[in-house]
Amino acid sequence: MKRSFSLIVFTYVALTLFGQQALAREYLVKTPDEYKQVAFNLQPGDEVILANGIWSDFEILFKAKGTQKAPIRLKAETPGKVFLSGLSNLRIAGEYLVVSGLVFKDGYTPTGEVISFRQNKDNLANYSRVTQVVIDNYSNPEKFEQDKWVVMYGKHNRFDHSSLVGKKNAGVTMAVRLNSEESQENYHRIDNNYFGPRPVLGSNGGETLRIGTSHYSLTNSFTTIENNYFDRCNGEVEIISNKSGKNRILNNLFFESKGTLTLRHGNGNLVEGNVFFGNGVDHTGGIRVINRDQIIRNNYMEGLTGYRFGSGFTIMNGVPNSKINRYHQVDNALIENNTLINVDHIHFAAGSDAERTATPINSKFQNNLVLNEDNLDGVSIFDDISGIEFDNNVVSSKTVPKIATGFLPSDVKVHRAENGLLYPTNLELKGIGASQGLVLVDKNKVGASYYPKSEPEVAFDSGQIIKVKPAENAIFNAIETASSGDTLVLDNGDYNISKVIKLTKTITIRAANKGHARLYPGRSTFVDINDYGSLKLVDLVIDGTQAPDSAGNTLIRTSRTPMQRNYRLEILNSVIQDLNVNHSFHVFDAGNRSFADVINISNNTLKNVTGDILRLNKETDDLGIYNAEYIYFNDNTVENVEGAIAKVYRGGTDESTFGPHFLMKNNDIKNVGKGKRNKASAAVFLHGVQVSDIANNKIVKSAFVNIEHTVGQPKTALTNNTFTETDAPRISELVAKGPHTATLKDNRVNKS
Amino acid sequence: MKRSFSLIVFTYVALTLFGQQALAREYLVKTPDEYKQVAFNLQPGDEVILANGIWSDFEILFKAKGTQKAPIRLKAETPGKVFLSGLSNLRIAGEYLVVSGLVFKDGYTPTGEVISFRQNKDNLANYSRVTQVVIDNYSNPEKFEQDKWVVMYGKHNRFDHSSLVGKKNAGVTMAVRLNSEESQENYHRIDNNYFGPRPVLGSNGGETLRIGTSHYSLTNSFTTIENNYFDRCNGEVEIISNKSGKNRILNNLFFESKGTLTLRHGNGNLVEGNVFFGNGVDHTGGIRVINRDQIIRNNYMEGLTGYRFGSGFTIMNGVPNSKINRYHQVDNALIENNTLINVDHIHFAAGSDAERTATPINSKFQNNLVLNEDNLDGVSIFDDISGIEFDNNVVSSKTVPKIATGFLPSDVKVHRAENGLLYPTNLELKGIGASQGLVLVDKNKVGASYYPKSEPEVAFDSGQIIKVKPAENAIFNAIETASSGDTLVLDNGDYNISKVIKLTKTITIRAANKGHARLYPGRSTFVDINDYGSLKLVDLVIDGTQAPDSAGNTLIRTSRTPMQRNYRLEILNSVIQDLNVNHSFHVFDAGNRSFADVINISNNTLKNVTGDILRLNKETDDLGIYNAEYIYFNDNTVENVEGAIAKVYRGGTDESTFGPHFLMKNNDIKNVGKGKRNKASAAVFLHGVQVSDIANNKIVKSAFVNIEHTVGQPKTALTNNTFTETDAPRISELVAKGPHTATLKDNRVNKS
Repeated sequence: MKRSFSLIVFTYVALTLFGQQALAREYLVKTPDEYKQVAFNLQPGDEVILANGIWSDFEILFKAKGTQKAPIRLKAETPGKVFLSGLSNLRIAGEYLVVSGLVFKDGYTPTGEVISFRQNKDNLANYSRVTQVVIDNYSNPEKFEQDKWVVMYGKHNRFDHSSLVGKKNAGVTMAVRLNSEESQENYHRIDNNYFGPRPVLGSNGGETLRIGTSHYSLTNSFTTIENNYFDRCNGEVEIISNKSGKNRILNNLFFESKGTLTLRHGNGNLVEGNVFFGNGVDHTGGIRVINRDQIIRNNYMEGLTGYRFGSGFTIMNGVPNSKINRYHQVDNALIENNTLINVDHIHFAAGSDAERTATPINSKFQNNLVLNEDNLDGVSIFDDISGIEFDNNVVSSKTVPKIATGFLPSDVKVHRAENGLLYPTNLELKGIGASQGLVLVDKNKVGASYYPKSEPEVAFDSGQIIKVKPAENAIFNAIETASSGDTLVLDNGDYNISKVIKLTKTITIRAANKGHARLYPGRSTFVDINDYGSLKLVDLVIDGTQAPDSAGNTLIRTSRTPMQRNYRLEILNSVIQDLNVNHSFHVFDAGNRSFADVINISNNTLKNVTGDILRLNKETDDLGIYNAEYIYFNDNTVENVEGAIAKVYRGGTDESTFGPHFLMKNNDIKNVGKGKRNKASAAVFLHGVQVSDIANNKIVKSAFVNIEHTVGQPKTALTNNTFTETDAPRISELVAKGPHTATLKDNRVNKS
Repeated sequence: MKRSFSLIVFTYVALTLFGQQALAREYLVKTPDEYKQVAFNLQPGDEVILANGIWSDFEILFKAKGTQKAPIRLKAETPGKVFLSGLSNLRIAGEYLVVSGLVFKDGYTPTGEVISFRQNKDNLANYSRVTQVVIDNYSNPEKFEQDKWVVMYGKHNRFDHSSLVGKKNAGVTMAVRLNSEESQENYHRIDNNYFGPRPVLGSNGGETLRIGTSHYSLTNSFTTIENNYFDRCNGEVEIISNKSGKNRILNNLFFESKGTLTLRHGNGNLVEGNVFFGNGVDHTGGIRVINRDQIIRNNYMEGLTGYRFGSGFTIMNGVPNSKINRYHQVDNALIENNTLINVDHIHFAAGSDAERTATPINSKFQNNLVLNEDNLDGVSIFDDISGIEFDNNVVSSKTVPKIATGFLPSDVKVHRAENGLLYPTNLELKGIGASQGLVLVDKNKVGASYYPKSEPEVAFDSGQIIKVKPAENAIFNAIETASSGDTLVLDNGDYNISKVIKLTKTITIRAANKGHARLYPGRSTFVDINDYGSLKLVDLVIDGTQAPDSAGNTLIRTSRTPMQRNYRLEILNSVIQDLNVNHSFHVFDAGNRSFADVINISNNTLKNVTGDILRLNKETDDLGIYNAEYIYFNDNTVENVEGAIAKVYRGGTDESTFGPHFLMKNNDIKNVGKGKRNKASAAVFLHGVQVSDIANNKIVKSAFVNIEHTVGQPKTALTNNTFTETDAPRISELVAKGPHTATLKDNRVNKS
């Protein structure tokens, strides 16, 4: 083979395990071909250095056998200046290998893993370390094409001081596999990493860290997860999904992360010294306990709002003689010295149902501090809890504890200590709650040291004001040159729009004077929201009369290309009218598998529409992949809409998502939902929505409200609505037996 | 303004209308900015020359006022070497303008039109010409983002000798608008153009040429459509949709085009001298007559298979006092001297129903020659045809004509004349059928003279053989380097596949020895068919056991990115098994708005599948946008499939599509469709399918067959099927009243 480049930069003497001297070499490589030429014959002590720059479509196989004293290294010329992009990935196999300084960005793995601690099932890595690497939104553009970012196989490996940020596609961010004996009892360490913001996935498959799988869950893993920072890891209800035995989850910090640390499968795990800050954010949770011999000690939880399986603290019921993938009974759990402050929900014997009848046994819950500002203890009890011994726990003296014994009401005074945590000042409470010695993970000290931590999204109206005057495609042209966060302010007048706006920025469009900027979209769509796009419309008049005379126009929609990123849509104080040039002219249509963090339609007048207002019903495969997390429809006047106000569909039967949430209040609604093409035959159709709050609406001469409950114990309330010449709402349970679980209060149906 | 470039190449003397001499200039421009600098002040006789090369994102406004004697020209430096790409388009406005030599390619218009004979509604073109231009697949990548390629406004304009090839997205290829007085009675000419292959759109909106709209259809257009070649214009049931009065459609050639020349609206049109060659291709049609005073004379039709509204020849019933967008009664039609040879269907009073009750009146059908090899005349009569006078038409002596008077059985002998048409040799038949003088359009002489006419798709197995041996990603790598049309021949052995194959070529994968190449896909998908991709699998064993343990895997699917191009899928003589690692593992899943020309699953064994076999049900908006034209499922053995064999959904209520067609014969089926997640609860679910033929199947212990008829008079036959321990098929009419129209014959239901 011709060697036209100088590979060996530096040769030095290294000691092998046996004390012999060997020639260790340092190779600086500049292309994948150069890499391959050196990679096939690496010796203990060798270093391969990837030159600074962008490496595209580079599938690295780092396979070699180093020694404890002379590991073999693969590293960046300058940490943070070597970018793996396009269809790249990394497999390591062998022993005593160290990889450092690489950044995966602007692409995604062509296989199922970005960094894999194996070449294939026969060649694993052992005694190896990946450190100071970054994977930053290296997400498959097809959001539901599942992959994992880091997967540990083998034994005695370490993944540390690395940053895993912004995974947008399905699949756990990081996993430890125990799928062969060579990967069990592995003693891996996962420490000092920054697990950066992961948005709500809108489906199962968004865990941040999983240790094991149900199949091998009765096997011990002996993995330590320590000192990591979980920053808004909101993928789904499980942040950490522990599915093996004898792991230690120590001193991690969970910041405003939706979901919980779940001891889903496996026995004898230790959860100690972790801190959970919810800050009152919806669905922030703590720890969920299942299985045998779990120890939950000295953890601190504050401001957690989650409920049910996503609660601040949960002990589950099990299934008698459970199959390995169901719920094993809680037995011999020790829960002690934890602090729970403003934790809205603490659930015991949760999930009790016809299948899950095995209540917790032989367990202790002691020396915990439970304080809530609202003077409730947040406790709910779902079955017999006599198998849990409650002892010496403290609640506020103003609280009447749900559990009579073992909870001492005390006049607790707290102060925030230097470490940022609240502690009682009462001397007599020493030994209750979490230790004063807890040291919080410093966000600045975890993750790859060279890589900045940035915010995941641009806020509306956070940029410049751009003044726009009426002219052909004036809005289109203004958005072309705007920056994300900017606000277009439209001068009075008529705006004809002959191009579809493909929105890839956070943009507000607002009238200088409410109602005096009139928009006339001339294409099938006004705005097509693409990745990075979010739209806010304020004070506008939008008129559909200039749209093409064909069926299926849509005022606003998301891209028909699959979206990787979540978006936001707000329409406020505006008039949307005369979307009726042909049939099925919708206000908003979500694309298949697009996902909105928030849709807020408030204070508008919407009239003369031949289609639907909100179409969030694109799932056809019932995998539980829905279209929006929060939908607000408040204070609107709606008249003559042939389709529905909203069609929201969340299919499937798994219970791992928070939403969708649907909130609809104070609307005046007349003649809605009665068009012959409205197949739902409803003015509002909600299927599988998790939280619905429909209140204070006046609904006249319209189709009925149809709510179908499926799984996940949905919370539905209809309050103080008036239905005039409109059929009463229909609420049905499609999965659970028995009457529906919605709360109806003060609604009136006035049939003419 | 600084002029840093030399604009004026050549100055010459031109005569204005008034005989004065003026300085005419010739500008060679190289950038859009240079163009804008000269375009704003063009004088009679001026020429603007676009330099050879690729012009990206160039929206040309050619607005000027030439004179009859001194038009103003916009032309290519070299015809065919000036490419408008990206987001480009052309608007012309003014008088006496001539555009020539431009090629639109590799992009799509940012507005609703590529070439528009107006700037905006106030500035139209008159006395202007576009000639020798090409628009070649300049299609919006979002197939159902509608646009038009050429739209004529104003009066006295001409579009000629141009090529419009391969429109893939929705919207008529070319339209004449009459939407203001300035565009009515326009005397446009559309001549000598090549309308190249346009694939089946799979929805309404795929017309090739439309003259007018229903709204202005009682207005005269006086447009001449002459000497054009329509090559496989298969978009939808209307090739030409005439919607205005006094047009002349002369001497055009329709080659294997699905659909008809339809006189949909408007009166007093002349259809003369046109030739239709169907060559027996499915759904090839001829002429459909509606409205008053239509003359259909001296046309030649051969080998047309279409039926109903797509027949070789149709006279419709009208609606009494019809609204302008419904069906006006046929009155005073003159149909004479047409030749119809091997035209399968000739329909009189077609479409007769409760609404369309106005039968044809005052009409003549005379001197036509109707010859069919099968000795049938193809005639169907749907209502009273006493308003049509039949006189002196000739059929073969072996034919018993359906209409007793006016059809003379004669001993006709025909020969093919030099012009390629069949004529009787019998002297006594002179004056019957089309004229000997018909001159066929020469494909080589129409369209832009410089632009080659290429075939639209690559056939399977038309390329090289590539031998492949088992190795990691061997198939993936072989496809990377293959050319479209190539065939991979797999050596015996096991093939592990760790990457999703994104297919953008026509590829066959075949085992060297049937059953000895075993494929183990390791990702959620084996092949993802993208634009330009078509897949044929032969003699393989494909096993799902290595797929990831998550719900919703799919062996083969189309891209989740919207597809612009139709594709083909064949699976033959193969075994597909054990797609059951988790629930909802499908064999094939079509993406939203993807469209298969053909799917052929034949001679396979399919077993142990937790999902569906064919999912062609992605329409959720009921606009009539379906997923496949022809589906063949023959001679398969199917066992233990939790989902359905096929779910085919064609929604909506319009009647402008041919398909879907579903053909299912000689299958052995056992335990199919009974999984709890099969929401259709059927083993086969067909909704709105136009043609279904289900015959000779043995179905055991399976869910039932469910067929829902909607619109379009679907043709459904179930013949000689055995249903053992399986419910009988359910067939329902969702739109029409009364019993279902399917034909059931010799089926047996054996309940255990």
